[in-house]
Amino acid sequence: MSSLVLGFDLGGTKVSAAVFDHDNTIIGRARAKTKASRSEDEVFATIVSVGRQAIESAGIDQKALAAIGIGSPGPLDPDTGHIIESANLPFKNFPLGPRLAEEFGCPVTLENDVSAGTYGEFRAGAARGAKDVLGMFVGTGIGGGVIINGAMYHGFNKNAGEIGHLVVEAGGARCNCGNRGCLEAYASRTAMTRQIKKAIKRGKKTLITELVDKKADRISSGALKEAFDAKDELVVKVVRRAANYIGIGIGSLVNVLSPEIVVLGGGVIEALGDDILPRIERSARKIAFEYAMKDVRIVKAQLGDDAGVIGAAKLAREALTRSGDAATAAVGS
Amino acid sequence: MSSLVLGFDLGGTKVSAAVFDHDNTIIGRARAKTKASRSEDEVFATIVSVGRQAIESAGIDQKALAAIGIGSPGPLDPDTGHIIESANLPFKNFPLGPRLAEEFGCPVTLENDVSAGTYGEFRAGAARGAKDVLGMFVGTGIGGGVIINGAMYHGFNKNAGEIGHLVVEAGGARCNCGNRGCLEAYASRTAMTRQIKKAIKRGKKTLITELVDKKADRISSGALKEAFDAKDELVVKVVRRAANYIGIGIGSLVNVLSPEIVVLGGGVIEALGDDILPRIERSARKIAFEYAMKDVRIVKAQLGDDAGVIGAAKLAREALTRSGDAATAAVGS
Repeated sequence: MSSLVLGFDLGGTKVSAAVFDHDNTIIGRARAKTKASRSEDEVFATIVSVGRQAIESAGIDQKALAAIGIGSPGPLDPDTGHIIESANLPFKNFPLGPRLAEEFGCPVTLENDVSAGTYGEFRAGAARGAKDVLGMFVGTGIGGGVIINGAMYHGFNKNAGEIGHLVVEAGGARCNCGNRGCLEAYASRTAMTRQIKKAIKRGKKTLITELVDKKADRISSGALKEAFDAKDELVVKVVRRAANYIGIGIGSLVNVLSPEIVVLGGGVIEALGDDILPRIERSARKIAFEYAMKDVRIVKAQLGDDAGVIGAAKLAREALTRSGDAATAAVGS
Repeated sequence: MSSLVLGFDLGGTKVSAAVFDHDNTIIGRARAKTKASRSEDEVFATIVSVGRQAIESAGIDQKALAAIGIGSPGPLDPDTGHIIESANLPFKNFPLGPRLAEEFGCPVTLENDVSAGTYGEFRAGAARGAKDVLGMFVGTGIGGGVIINGAMYHGFNKNAGEIGHLVVEAGGARCNCGNRGCLEAYASRTAMTRQIKKAIKRGKKTLITELVDKKADRISSGALKEAFDAKDELVVKVVRRAANYIGIGIGSLVNVLSPEIVVLGGGVIEALGDDILPRIERSARKIAFEYAMKDVRIVKAQLGDDAGVIGAAKLAREALTRSGDAATAAVGS
């Protein structure tokens, strides 16, 4: 049987695909932009096209694929392969898994994008060897992935791990989710951008206005890093404040979940991780009980942008093995 | 083989024991006071004495016991049976499990007291039939128990579920744990007492001063309930505020853990649960995502003071079955 697996990482702005050989080495890649304004069918066509390009760049036949794994923004149903909805994609109760299975002629595993990234780090990155893992990805928003006893944890409604919507300031800052006080409203890049814009409006001088367009509407993690390195007073203050909140969130979650390792990824961490990790860790250790933090590691993700495709491909390959076992067991019975 | 099991529920102020027959019916009971000021050996002697009284009241021979389960305040190590330490008991790295095993001549299962209570509700109470359960017990403090995939969840450092120390107001009210802003510092009976005392000091009139001693140093859940029923303005306000925070904690935890059922127990809930459950649920549903809350039940515990002994006994019996299976498997291999 073929051991080639295709992994996808679907996001609100882009989709990446990679073909993995039996050694889990990437032998082909492709990517393209997605756009929120387009229809379900158009986004689906883009995904298929990126998958075909990755297959072509790997120099293999589509029929050689054993399985597909895809990480996607949720909420979604990993059992049926349906996207329930997605803030940045037009999908609404869309059977992404079944449609891809039909298109490519192999089984498809659908997983939340951040969970897939966490799983990638767990199986091939910074969290290798741990059993209980908490993944936290800080970018436009804050997403999480929870691995318990060595398996992806979904919970009753199959979308566990929404750690960006842990309330850290009851009744506090307005969050994109509509509530107030969520971690995401204090520590995401969106939250930092809002704080910086507010300060600029009040007349605060900052390098950020030179680094981005005058309105500072979209501040990239790279621009934050540049201003941070230049010791820009406002940006340093805002970034440190976000790091404190990230640590508070981690400390709370360590008290509740007792993970062995906390893996931090996402654009903000990739750009500023080395600068803020000590502060994050200090803040987390202040909140979490000493016995809960004992020997717990808080580390940067290692796989960068590949975490998602790697995790999705790993999950797809393992689902294949499980169903193979089940088939064998059924044959044997 | 005997199927009689002895369950203990150890607390800072009292210890209860119950003997369970093969049907898990309680056939004997005993209880006594414990006191923080006494030595490890004295508290241990009290536990042993209460166990012996329960055995006597059941009319059985100590040799007939198949297993013992004990729920205790932690942190503790359920694998070795050691209490690491405990705020309200003199134990410090105390081998409670091994010592009880020696004393009673049967295997002992040690579990966190709130986890044991949650497990009791899961196996014989309000959470029967669910797979992923969150238990929250509100009294002097706020404790939690997490059941995942039908099994007690301990995590890497074996003391997961400290949901009272989820930060809900970063930098907020001082908590008994030494940190600031924990859920326990806003919604436990201790927190409510502090708020009431503060208001009295500022000259606020309240029935509470009639119901308890003038200093209102220890306000019982019963006194809170009486004042609440009498529509005492201060107490109603304080209780409602606590209910809002409990809901915020639950909402956050539903986003992260996605349980099927949230079981609320403890003295505050036993006294005021029917009055505040709708408010707790409203507050939780405001925070948690709609898809995460779908079909999730937030319910009152059903077993009252017996949850702990029942859960501990169930865990002990199941550990016995597992080790029996292992022995059988070993013989069979």
